[in-house]
Amino acid sequence: MALSFGIIGAGALGGYYGARLHHAGFETHFVFHNDYAHVKNHGLRVDSIEGDFSIAAPHAWSHIENLPPCDVLCVCLKSTENHLLRDQIAHKVKPGGAVLVLQNGLGIEEELAQWVHPIPVFGGLCFLCSNKVGPGHISHLDYGGMRLGSLESNPPHSLELLSRIAEAFRLAGIDATITDNLAEARWQKLVWNIPFNGLCVILRCTTTQIMQHPAGLALATALMNEVKQASHACHTPVPAGFVEKMLADTLRMTPYLPSMRLDFDRGNPMEIDAIYSQPLARAESFGFAMPLTRMLRDQLLVAQALHNHSKGHHL
Amino acid sequence: MALSFGIIGAGALGGYYGARLHHAGFETHFVFHNDYAHVKNHGLRVDSIEGDFSIAAPHAWSHIENLPPCDVLCVCLKSTENHLLRDQIAHKVKPGGAVLVLQNGLGIEEELAQWVHPIPVFGGLCFLCSNKVGPGHISHLDYGGMRLGSLESNPPHSLELLSRIAEAFRLAGIDATITDNLAEARWQKLVWNIPFNGLCVILRCTTTQIMQHPAGLALATALMNEVKQASHACHTPVPAGFVEKMLADTLRMTPYLPSMRLDFDRGNPMEIDAIYSQPLARAESFGFAMPLTRMLRDQLLVAQALHNHSKGHHL
Repeated sequence: MALSFGIIGAGALGGYYGARLHHAGFETHFVFHNDYAHVKNHGLRVDSIEGDFSIAAPHAWSHIENLPPCDVLCVCLKSTENHLLRDQIAHKVKPGGAVLVLQNGLGIEEELAQWVHPIPVFGGLCFLCSNKVGPGHISHLDYGGMRLGSLESNPPHSLELLSRIAEAFRLAGIDATITDNLAEARWQKLVWNIPFNGLCVILRCTTTQIMQHPAGLALATALMNEVKQASHACHTPVPAGFVEKMLADTLRMTPYLPSMRLDFDRGNPMEIDAIYSQPLARAESFGFAMPLTRMLRDQLLVAQALHNHSKGHHL
Repeated sequence: MALSFGIIGAGALGGYYGARLHHAGFETHFVFHNDYAHVKNHGLRVDSIEGDFSIAAPHAWSHIENLPPCDVLCVCLKSTENHLLRDQIAHKVKPGGAVLVLQNGLGIEEELAQWVHPIPVFGGLCFLCSNKVGPGHISHLDYGGMRLGSLESNPPHSLELLSRIAEAFRLAGIDATITDNLAEARWQKLVWNIPFNGLCVILRCTTTQIMQHPAGLALATALMNEVKQASHACHTPVPAGFVEKMLADTLRMTPYLPSMRLDFDRGNPMEIDAIYSQPLARAESFGFAMPLTRMLRDQLLVAQALHNHSKGHHL
C-alpha cells in the first residue's frame, strides 16, 4: 500500500514537498498554523519553475492534535519550535512508520529519537529555494532535491522503509537520493547554510549580492572552507570539490533570501543553535576551532537580541 | 612666539580641537567644507561635557587654497580624502613648521611625508568621543586625550617642535602626551578601532549595545586580542593589560556611534583602507594572519558597496 504522509509545519518547505506528494496521489495531511483557515477556504497554491499547480481541498489540520496517524511524519517546522512536538509526535506515526526530519543543522534527529523511541528517525537534507509569498501560497524558485539518511541507532530493517520513502518522493517529482552517512550529508548542507544564512542576515542582502562582490565571495569561501575542515576533523568529511560545487551552484541561483533572513525580517527566532552552535560544539569536541563561524554566530546572537529589542519598542 | 594652527577638515574632531586651541588664545585657522557659510554667519559652537562654549568669529576658510600658512597644519579629514591635499599641503606650512596627522589607521604619515618632504610629519592618536550635531555645532561627549608621536624619518631636532605642540594642546585643556613610538601608539588605537568601528556598522548598533551582550563582548574581545597579537608580530606590541583597559573604558563610555558608523549612515566612504586593509597588509608582511579582522573588513566592503548601490536607487 502506498505510504501516507503527515507534514508538520506546512510552510515554504513542508508545504512544497507535501503539495508534490499530494499532487502525485499520496495521501498527505498538512498541519498549518496561521494559514489553516485560508487553506480550508481557498486551498493550497504552488507557483513553481517546473509548472504551477493548486490543490483545491488538501487534508488540512489546524493542530498536530487533530492530525491522523501517518506512515511518514515529516517534521518541517523551524527547529526552534521542535520542543512543541515532544509529547505528541510518537502518537502520530502509524505502526511500522517513521519520523523524517526535514530541517537544517546538527543534532536534531538525535533529540527527536529520544522522544519517539523505538520509532525510526530519518533525516533529509533539502536543496530547495522556495518562499511562502502569501497564505497557502508557495513560490518554488529553484532546485528541490533531497538527500535522505538514517540515524545510526535505527534498526537495520528500517532502511527498507527509507528506500520506499525516497521512491515516493521520486514519484512526486523530487530528486530524492539516499546517503549511507547522514552526518556527512548534514555537514555538506552546513557548507552552504553556515555562510549564506548568516551573511544574508548580517549584511541584509541576497545570496547573489554576496557572490557578486569579491569580498563577499571571499567571505563565503573562507567560511565554507572552515566548515569543510571541521567536517574532516569530525570524521564526516565533505567530498573533494564540494565547496567549489556549492559556490558554482550559488552563483547560478536566482537571487535568494535564505530562511534565516526571512525569520530575521519577520522578527522570528533564527535557527542559530542548530545551524551554528551545534556544529561549533561538535567540532570543538573533536578539538577543532571554527573562529569565523563563531564570529558569525556571535554577530547573529547580537543581531537577534537587538532586533527583538527594537521590535519590543514598536509594540 | 606662540604656534599658529591650521585645521584641515573642521568636523567633529578637527573642529573640537581647533576650537579648544582658539579658545586658549592660539591663532587657529579652520578649513570648513559644507559648514563654511553657516560658520561665517553664526560662528562655531561646542557643547562639551567639560563646559559649553562658542566662537563668534573664528578664522574660517572655505578651501585649503585660501588658508594662510600656519606653523602646525592639522590634517583632520577622513583619510579617504587625503589625496585632495597632495599638491597644496606643503605650501600651507610656515618655515620651521610641521604637519600633524590626526587620523585613524596605519600608513598615513608615511604617505603624507612623501608629499611634504623635508617638512616633518607628526601623528596624533585621539581618544575623543565627539559628533557633529549640526552645521558648525559639535557635541563633545567623552574623553579627549591625544598621544603625539614623530615619524622615524623626521630630523631629530623636530622633536623639540613636537614638545611645543603638545604643550600648546595642554594649554588648551587637552591631555596631550608624547610617545617615542608612533607605530606602537597607532596599533594601540587599532585595538579599539578595529572591533568597534566595524561591528557598529555591521550590527547597526552602539558601542554599549555590543558591550552589554555576552556575544558582543566575545566579538570585541576576540578582535582586540587578534589586533594585540598582530602588534606583537609587527614588533610594535601594545602593552600588557591594554585590551582589558580598552574594554573597561568602552563599558564606561556613553553609548557611542563611532565615526565609521556615521560615515556609513551618511553614505560617505568609510576608512576601511586605513583602519583595516593597511593593518592586515602590515601584519601579513610579518607573516601574521588576522582572520577575524579580515572577515570584518570583507563584511564592510560588501556593506559599503550595497549601501552605495541602494543610495543610487534613491537618487
